Amino acid sequence: MKKLINAPSDYVDEMLAGLVAAHPELTLGGESGRCVSRTRPAGDGTVGIATGGGSGHLPLFTGYVGAGLVDACAVGNVFEGPNVQSCIDAIQTAHRGAGVLCLYGNYGGDRMNFDMAVEMTGLEGITCETVLGNDDVASAAPEEAEKRRGVAGIVLLYKAAGAAAAEGRNLSEVAAVARKASAATRSVGVALSPCRVPTATAPNFEIPDDQMEMGMGIHGEPGIWRAPVAKADVVADELFDRVVAELAPGRGDRVVPMINGLGATPLEELYILWRRVSMRLDDAGIAAVQPMVGNFVTSMEMAGASLSMMVLDSELEALIRAPADCPFWRVLP
Amino acid sequence: MKKLINAPSDYVDEMLAGLVAAHPELTLGGESGRCVSRTRPAGDGTVGIATGGGSGHLPLFTGYVGAGLVDACAVGNVFEGPNVQSCIDAIQTAHRGAGVLCLYGNYGGDRMNFDMAVEMTGLEGITCETVLGNDDVASAAPEEAEKRRGVAGIVLLYKAAGAAAAEGRNLSEVAAVARKASAATRSVGVALSPCRVPTATAPNFEIPDDQMEMGMGIHGEPGIWRAPVAKADVVADELFDRVVAELAPGRGDRVVPMINGLGATPLEELYILWRRVSMRLDDAGIAAVQPMVGNFVTSMEMAGASLSMMVLDSELEALIRAPADCPFWRVLP
Repeated sequence: MKKLINAPSDYVDEMLAGLVAAHPELTLGGESGRCVSRTRPAGDGTVGIATGGGSGHLPLFTGYVGAGLVDACAVGNVFEGPNVQSCIDAIQTAHRGAGVLCLYGNYGGDRMNFDMAVEMTGLEGITCETVLGNDDVASAAPEEAEKRRGVAGIVLLYKAAGAAAAEGRNLSEVAAVARKASAATRSVGVALSPCRVPTATAPNFEIPDDQMEMGMGIHGEPGIWRAPVAKADVVADELFDRVVAELAPGRGDRVVPMINGLGATPLEELYILWRRVSMRLDDAGIAAVQPMVGNFVTSMEMAGASLSMMVLDSELEALIRAPADCPFWRVLP
Repeated sequence: MKKLINAPSDYVDEMLAGLVAAHPELTLGGESGRCVSRTRPAGDGTVGIATGGGSGHLPLFTGYVGAGLVDACAVGNVFEGPNVQSCIDAIQTAHRGAGVLCLYGNYGGDRMNFDMAVEMTGLEGITCETVLGNDDVASAAPEEAEKRRGVAGIVLLYKAAGAAAAEGRNLSEVAAVARKASAATRSVGVALSPCRVPTATAPNFEIPDDQMEMGMGIHGEPGIWRAPVAKADVVADELFDRVVAELAPGRGDRVVPMINGLGATPLEELYILWRRVSMRLDDAGIAAVQPMVGNFVTSMEMAGASLSMMVLDSELEALIRAPADCPFWRVLP
């Protein structure tokens, strides 16, 4: 697993230096030096949105800092939650007088550090609400949804909550939107090959040359089954069926579908998967709104893909269609 | 080399079906069924831009069909030039009464088929000019530049020529812009791992587990040297030095730099490469205009990266900064 890197210990900081050098609309700062925020912040008095997570998932998390999306992002080491100071930095930077929604994936380390940062910034008078992304249906049973991990669906949560904040809604309203978006969003993924954390000497998991794993997490967390690589349509059908089994969209419903590449899977294959999913949606009489096909949430050089879906009501659809602008996603007015 | 595909023989057509299903602004048509064009064409009487090439390089070529870029694209099988009929389709579709610029990479099969299509559509009264992308400095010596292959720099040529056409310039003016853009653009790449054509049983080349190849082409064409994988800064320096040696930009010059991923190389590593290239540009007193970091021209699951650079004059800079909108690149007014 070859990498074009320098010292593994410099990986995150050099990546961040390159990111802000390429995108002057992003600024790296905070006491931790690990907080990415908008160079031109949104207006005073609007709700801030802070996020954060481990590195190794670009464009997630830092890439979604932008107008109509996220205000500030705490950056951890590869596959490690951000430290408390970077979470504090993100909350302080996102705060513009109307409180902050902390919106991030449901992982233990991230929760612990964000919770502590919420407590500490609370002492300074910053009011926070927290909503967690927990869209991965493979990571726990439906009745234990609070144990589920957050994966690619978080991007849709950013979009809905970010648009609500940009409209000038207050903190409890923005948090309510995020909770509603989270309740309407599910994902499941399939992995074909592992990745390697730069400071590690071995891949994060082993998988035979002819096998795939359904339901594997974006850090290589174990999935549901492992078997020989199936045809794209078979894989797409299973991803679709697993997501639809929980969201139960009906004829006439409208959804935002996202086919996400985990890193090394070519865009060609993502479109082949999307072809099948779009046929399934058509057959079921479900409308696809702004379908997303690409690498939105990756695991470095891991091969594989995931399907996310958000079922829309008129409020969520308006928020998803609202203008947004970050280095990796532009929705035009 | 695992793939999420169905029958290898259906790879291209299923990919195209997914592409247009995801992007209603693109239409698949033509007598060949292998021509992607704008669903809402540009205005009558403006110069059309037709391109084409083999599949397996998404977003290239079809992904750059859009406003201010390319009008129509002939699609070949994986790593094979488009057939004559699809070239004819692309020229006919791009033609809106003011002639067509055929702008594509310098590969024998593509040239032969486009040349024949130019001849045949000429009989129908469509005037064409042809400009070839030949930016890969590793593929032939400077004095044999006409033998050089086209790689990622073609995207910058699309941008310049597409903006000139959108401004209403005539065919010879648009072709002159494309020639000037081509003369100002160079690229070089480095490969770390091969890819596999879906209908083949073996990878397109072999490379030891610890090696990289400088100057390899996007279909695995042999490069300049092969050696153990070097640090990112060393690789970035060599890419930079090779491009700068030919373009010879001076202090105060302005360039568009592009760090392009070949497919499986994570975005994190591309930013680490860009960090170094941007330092080198700063040190040389050269300004980076709209730096591009991402997967613009790939080789499916090949790992590696390339550096392209276009040296700007005021005309080219205005064209590069002009609005454009395709599924993979948006430049806002």
